[in-house]
Amino acid sequence: MPQPMIISIDVMGGDHGPAVTIAGADLELSRRPDVRFVLYGDEAVARPVLERYPRVAAASTFHHCDVTVAMHDKPSVALRQGRWKSSMWRAIEAVKRGEAAVCVSAGNTGALMAMSKFCLRTLANIERPAIAAIWPTLRSESIVLDVGATVGADAQQLIDFAVMGGAMARALFQVERPSVGLLNIGVEDVKGNEEVRTAGQMLREADMPHLAYAGFVEGDDIGQGRVDVIVTEGFAGNIALKTAEGTARQVGSYLRQAMSRTLMAKIGYLFARSAFERLREKMDPRKLNGGVFLGMNGIVIKSHGGTDMEGFASALDLGYDMVRNDLLAKIQADLAQYHRGRFGARAEGGDG
Amino acid sequence: MPQPMIISIDVMGGDHGPAVTIAGADLELSRRPDVRFVLYGDEAVARPVLERYPRVAAASTFHHCDVTVAMHDKPSVALRQGRWKSSMWRAIEAVKRGEAAVCVSAGNTGALMAMSKFCLRTLANIERPAIAAIWPTLRSESIVLDVGATVGADAQQLIDFAVMGGAMARALFQVERPSVGLLNIGVEDVKGNEEVRTAGQMLREADMPHLAYAGFVEGDDIGQGRVDVIVTEGFAGNIALKTAEGTARQVGSYLRQAMSRTLMAKIGYLFARSAFERLREKMDPRKLNGGVFLGMNGIVIKSHGGTDMEGFASALDLGYDMVRNDLLAKIQADLAQYHRGRFGARAEGGDG
Repeated sequence: MPQPMIISIDVMGGDHGPAVTIAGADLELSRRPDVRFVLYGDEAVARPVLERYPRVAAASTFHHCDVTVAMHDKPSVALRQGRWKSSMWRAIEAVKRGEAAVCVSAGNTGALMAMSKFCLRTLANIERPAIAAIWPTLRSESIVLDVGATVGADAQQLIDFAVMGGAMARALFQVERPSVGLLNIGVEDVKGNEEVRTAGQMLREADMPHLAYAGFVEGDDIGQGRVDVIVTEGFAGNIALKTAEGTARQVGSYLRQAMSRTLMAKIGYLFARSAFERLREKMDPRKLNGGVFLGMNGIVIKSHGGTDMEGFASALDLGYDMVRNDLLAKIQADLAQYHRGRFGARAEGGDG
Repeated sequence: MPQPMIISIDVMGGDHGPAVTIAGADLELSRRPDVRFVLYGDEAVARPVLERYPRVAAASTFHHCDVTVAMHDKPSVALRQGRWKSSMWRAIEAVKRGEAAVCVSAGNTGALMAMSKFCLRTLANIERPAIAAIWPTLRSESIVLDVGATVGADAQQLIDFAVMGGAMARALFQVERPSVGLLNIGVEDVKGNEEVRTAGQMLREADMPHLAYAGFVEGDDIGQGRVDVIVTEGFAGNIALKTAEGTARQVGSYLRQAMSRTLMAKIGYLFARSAFERLREKMDPRKLNGGVFLGMNGIVIKSHGGTDMEGFASALDLGYDMVRNDLLAKIQADLAQYHRGRFGARAEGGDG
């Protein structure tokens, strides 16, 4: 039997706080009995909830924190007021101190990222972190990064994202050499901006045993599952992700409207009920809940703030999988290999 | 009865050439009997098709052109080889010479934009053109620009897009003061890049009688129809548009799979057939086919290259509406007003 997996949770994070985070932890325990928790939060709020979930209480240590980061605090304010003492900070710090293998929070994204950077620091050779999202596709799932951490990433940063996203695909999909595409506004070499063109050229020329560069991909290629990993800077990536979420909801609304308009449609709906349930499940955003913060000395998972216990359990699941499949070690190994390749090429004259 | 509306068509444009463009013109004639065409293309290819559509032949003048711009020609190559003589160039030139009120082409977007800029030139006070798309929303429709003409538009260019998009909304939706949002990765002032933050501040401070600035909007707000006009630079805009198209197709695939999996689902489908038809119609990309090139001395409409006669007729329809509703005059009036306001404020000390 493997060692227990310890996950640190900022129980105050998210729109619903402990009511969702602790309930989600309970659900996760029913799925992964070897999981243990280190919980950080306001005792007065969390303790009554914890009493309703004795299984979580038994599998956890609880640490009271006076400060809670609010969902709309600016990152700078959160850092100033919450450093060292907020539940968010201390949950991240548990990873740094080796007391937890991964941290999960449904709190304020900007604050969580600012604190993660400050507390865990970026990896050697990584200038800027990225947030990776798991995107449902017609084939299976793909990884898209960055979805909002690094606005205006430059060519070298895009390459770093490609290497880290590739390592995450190796951990998540168990493929040896994931395919990686650069998000662009066309597939021809001349398309896009300077950064994406330069990154494309660098990726073409790099020789990476764990990454198969597949060229430029366009927005409509993401959902087709054409590549395992889609790399982009944080502005376009965030807009792509939210536009896709919005479009899926929009089509869902059209469908509901259409199916409730006539008696015949309502009868049809009853017959096809299980098919609609299947569709709903397929499109359930709670199943792929969790952005993975990449590029720091430790893994932090950001859950959607508005999710429920199902969704929060998915984020815990994701954290569990990322640790069990050695995400951090894979990232470090792939980065080292990439940089050895660069310096090697340079030492030999760099015409590889 | 109004004057006939003359539309110039590059009949060679698109994946299917005259078979679609001339058939689309025939469909448009059945909807708008007052439309007339100036057609440009290779006589050997177009003439046999034109003979199958005598109504189009009777309502058109045809001009033979030796050169056709290929769908994958680089804009620079298309401009070098096709200037003055290609069917695409001459269709645009017809607008410049006043022989047509609007030009419609299903050809290569980059080439069409390069030739439009070269032939028609940008309007006074406009540095860079934009492509505006009409986006279906839960409320009705919105205008999104730029979807690919100006990668990395700066703050002033974003303002120009806002003014032009507002004018287009006035022409298309018949609203007096359209609401305009800037696409960003969050609604707080600190979010996004320098350009979008500066543009937001400038729009807040500008006093425009024909434009109601509504602040930042996110990717998932577009499909909700929160504002009439969404402004963004061309990279993020193109990715948003294509990601939405891809997601709609993806959900459509899920739905088809679900409805054909079991006998009960198939029976349900039969009952609800008219509802599914309604949904399909609602999501039909041919109905909102056509990107409007804004910012030049003349209007050019880009149809999807892969569309059919229905879709091409929609693009012709859009061109027709844009002219009948005085799009160009509205843009010029709104730009003049905006720049008067700027200079007025500056003269008075600029603290308005």
